[in-house]
Amino acid sequence: MPKQIDLNSDLGESFGQWQMGDDTAILELVSSANIACGFHAGSPAGIRETLRAAHLRGVSVGAHVGYPDLVGFGRRAMDIASDELTADVIYQLGALQGLAKSVGTTVRYVKPHGALYNTIAHDERQALAVIEAIFAYDTQLPLVGLAGSPILQLAQQKGLKTVAEAFADRAYHSDGRLVSRREKGAVLHDPEQVAQRMLQMVTDGGVTSIEGDFTPVQADSICVHGDSPGAIAMADQVRVLLEANGITIRSFLNS
Amino acid sequence: MPKQIDLNSDLGESFGQWQMGDDTAILELVSSANIACGFHAGSPAGIRETLRAAHLRGVSVGAHVGYPDLVGFGRRAMDIASDELTADVIYQLGALQGLAKSVGTTVRYVKPHGALYNTIAHDERQALAVIEAIFAYDTQLPLVGLAGSPILQLAQQKGLKTVAEAFADRAYHSDGRLVSRREKGAVLHDPEQVAQRMLQMVTDGGVTSIEGDFTPVQADSICVHGDSPGAIAMADQVRVLLEANGITIRSFLNS
Amino acid sequence: MPKQIDLNSDLGESFGQWQMGDDTAILELVSSANIACGFHAGSPAGIRETLRAAHLRGVSVGAHVGYPDLVGFGRRAMDIASDELTADVIYQLGALQGLAKSVGTTVRYVKPHGALYNTIAHDERQALAVIEAIFAYDTQLPLVGLAGSPILQLAQQKGLKTVAEAFADRAYHSDGRLVSRREKGAVLHDPEQVAQRMLQMVTDGGVTSIEGDFTPVQADSICVHGDSPGAIAMADQVRVLLEANGITIRSFLNS
Amino acid sequence: MPKQIDLNSDLGESFGQWQMGDDTAILELVSSANIACGFHAGSPAGIRETLRAAHLRGVSVGAHVGYPDLVGFGRRAMDIASDELTADVIYQLGALQGLAKSVGTTVRYVKPHGALYNTIAHDERQALAVIEAIFAYDTQLPLVGLAGSPILQLAQQKGLKTVAEAFADRAYHSDGRLVSRREKGAVLHDPEQVAQRMLQMVTDGGVTSIEGDFTPVQADSICVHGDSPGAIAMADQVRVLLEANGITIRSFLNS
Repeated sequence: MPKQIDLNSDLGESFGQWQMGDDTAILELVSSANIACGFHAGSPAGIRETLRAAHLRGVSVGAHVGYPDLVGFGRRAMDIASDELTADVIYQLGALQGLAKSVGTTVRYVKPHGALYNTIAHDERQALAVIEAIFAYDTQLPLVGLAGSPILQLAQQKGLKTVAEAFADRAYHSDGRLVSRREKGAVLHDPEQVAQRMLQMVTDGGVTSIEGDFTPVQADSICVHGDSPGAIAMADQVRVLLEANGITIRSFLNS
Repeated sequence: MPKQIDLNSDLGESFGQWQMGDDTAILELVSSANIACGFHAGSPAGIRETLRAAHLRGVSVGAHVGYPDLVGFGRRAMDIASDELTADVIYQLGALQGLAKSVGTTVRYVKPHGALYNTIAHDERQALAVIEAIFAYDTQLPLVGLAGSPILQLAQQKGLKTVAEAFADRAYHSDGRLVSRREKGAVLHDPEQVAQRMLQMVTDGGVTSIEGDFTPVQADSICVHGDSPGAIAMADQVRVLLEANGITIRSFLNS
Repeated sequence: MPKQIDLNSDLGESFGQWQMGDDTAILELVSSANIACGFHAGSPAGIRETLRAAHLRGVSVGAHVGYPDLVGFGRRAMDIASDELTADVIYQLGALQGLAKSVGTTVRYVKPHGALYNTIAHDERQALAVIEAIFAYDTQLPLVGLAGSPILQLAQQKGLKTVAEAFADRAYHSDGRLVSRREKGAVLHDPEQVAQRMLQMVTDGGVTSIEGDFTPVQADSICVHGDSPGAIAMADQVRVLLEANGITIRSFLNS
Repeated sequence: MPKQIDLNSDLGESFGQWQMGDDTAILELVSSANIACGFHAGSPAGIRETLRAAHLRGVSVGAHVGYPDLVGFGRRAMDIASDELTADVIYQLGALQGLAKSVGTTVRYVKPHGALYNTIAHDERQALAVIEAIFAYDTQLPLVGLAGSPILQLAQQKGLKTVAEAFADRAYHSDGRLVSRREKGAVLHDPEQVAQRMLQMVTDGGVTSIEGDFTPVQADSICVHGDSPGAIAMADQVRVLLEANGITIRSFLNS
């Protein structure tokens, strides 16, 4: 059976006159686009343009839902009540689905963004509020989360589909946790090394940890970045090396 | 054939901690609820609660789409580019539909709010941007507009369904236009008179104009207000008098 | 020497078309008005009107600075970076001072609002960011905080003036801490009892704690509410009883 | 007497994580920096950083006040009530002054931005609202406007100081009006030509119009852009050519 993997990246993050990332360039490389929904980034006309571009290239789109915090880009933890968080997530899902429908595509998964992604990894109350939102909106929509993290187990227990992702440019501990950005060596900068690690992960089912051990990482998708020319070059190298080794890049929806 | 008419009102206009209107009270009286979508009013958790309450009472819900202007409550004309306006309307439609779906109901029509309602009555460019939004989102969704206004004709020409509405508490000129709020006598305050006029409109197909003539007004729906105890009492009187005269209050969707 | 005490309350919390509180009524009762600065509540025209009304009645105005979270009314804790928090506080101070100056008054103190007030009571990093903001803006501006709380000591160590406040309608533990709102009996509802406690505090220097002990509370100001008719009646009763016992209600600035 | 002229440019337009323009580069070239105040662009921490950088280089700072429209970057005309516009402008002036004071500088002038700049050029009601704001805040603060435009006359009649500015890269009609951006040739792209025109304006008191005539333009300041590498190169060429011809670049405040 031929190997395959999904590549995902964050898109639609421009806001009004402010540009962020090169959506057109990264759309040539990924199979899944996490599209900002207007709460932490993205404004309707720009989101719609990105959705159209993704649809044109056959890239799957997902809702990159975040905290209502534009000026903080959704990167600041917020102690938000459960019913408000649930409604905020549904609102964003619906808004993105409206724009997606208007250009002939549809939202296929949910990936929380930034501080919301990090918070629900350890805060069960907020995690349950997000899970409830997805359930109330569409029980078939998978939730994308960090491979091996408790949020994926929790979502599965509640009956949600989940997708495990790995981060191409992040170091892992031997127990499968990401090395915190505050620690040295947490972020990898060498595209060659990053590509080799992702090849290792897809073929061997794990990566070498920062402690030097082989660490299992079972991921359906690899998250790459598109917010700088260097990031796009790195994503390109990951894709090229994977394809050169017979691995097909395609959405986890087609697995 | 028994007569029927729809009563519509603006709901979901609270924002976070700020309350506006008594949604529960007005939901007892109307057959259609125009729900704010977050751009001029409404925040997700409150909108969702109103949608749930409307659904419980069998009241149809529509998207009350507005300009992105919370502090101005969408009452300030904005010279917004067509592609931005189109995307803004789709975003709001989708967001409301997401919340509606999550509580078991669905968005059944579109009614522009405030300055957007007034602007598209004479600004063809913005009118077309709104029409395009509805088309791109769902060709079957009717647009609610002022009875006799050019925007309804324009929408019909483009293939949209339309719903004509009358305003219960507004005076009309003999040519069918509303008397401007800046003119004396534009707004009617006597609930008895307002109710009688609406009965006249439903039974005779028109009202007495400010100039004293009988003026044809062909409306499928009557807009009433719920933002003050007086407004709710007026809406109640309209409903009671219509029903006492054998007129059924129900959504235009059931006509 | 005649006794005196300051009464403070939160004002200027309306936003655009949304009203909150009865600023005119509460201004008759208090000597200090904590005015929202637009981040958690308040819009410029309304803030300016409240400032004008406060100035007319000789009520001191202070900056009620909050997190940038309108929809959450500044009541949700946010993990905001220190330089951003410092700049946010200065921005709010300046904005309010601009409006105050335009109506002939001036901002005389700073009182953090809601979640910011609560967070800096225990989070030293955010506390220092707020203190730095006040220092950078005006070293003479006092900071209002909970009587006995560490934030006041910290501010004093850094050279800031401070004002200690008590909450009229809140129960205290014997060690001087407020009873958490999540606990039973945390909020007092009987205006007579509340007024008697505040009289006790001003005359005896403390209140009876929830555990039944006399607890010292050294406060220069008493916080009362104006966001409901009941709250205004309670504030009125506090003022009337204090004045009936020879206590002058006036700003801590005049002590 | 040696000739001198002011060069002004728009700065502080980044918002949260979104960058716009190269403030550091343009600060090397201009004598006046129009700083966004948070309504159409700019967030407090970034604004403060730009103010600090301007102060370090001895560049005067002015308030670039705009409509409350972040997503539209203040470029969409808004029909805003006079008292709201007045309060909005004062709020922005105060906020910027607060941040300026905190880094040791002060706001020295007011320049409306984008759609507000354009609207007050012909809408007397809104123009008066802006003038009233400046008056209420500080009667000595000059208003920057288009050389020869009625708003400057109106402001002078009301007792305000004014500063006339020319646009380096814009074509003029023979009557002194700018050629509309919708017309061909409205924007000049050749840095050499632009610099020569500005030299002509400073030395001869006018420029060659699009119709080919010499057109008087009496300006105290020249507006240049910093939002792209090309724009900065053009501003640099203007400055270099003026200085090479013995013209000193310094703030109009020093004339």
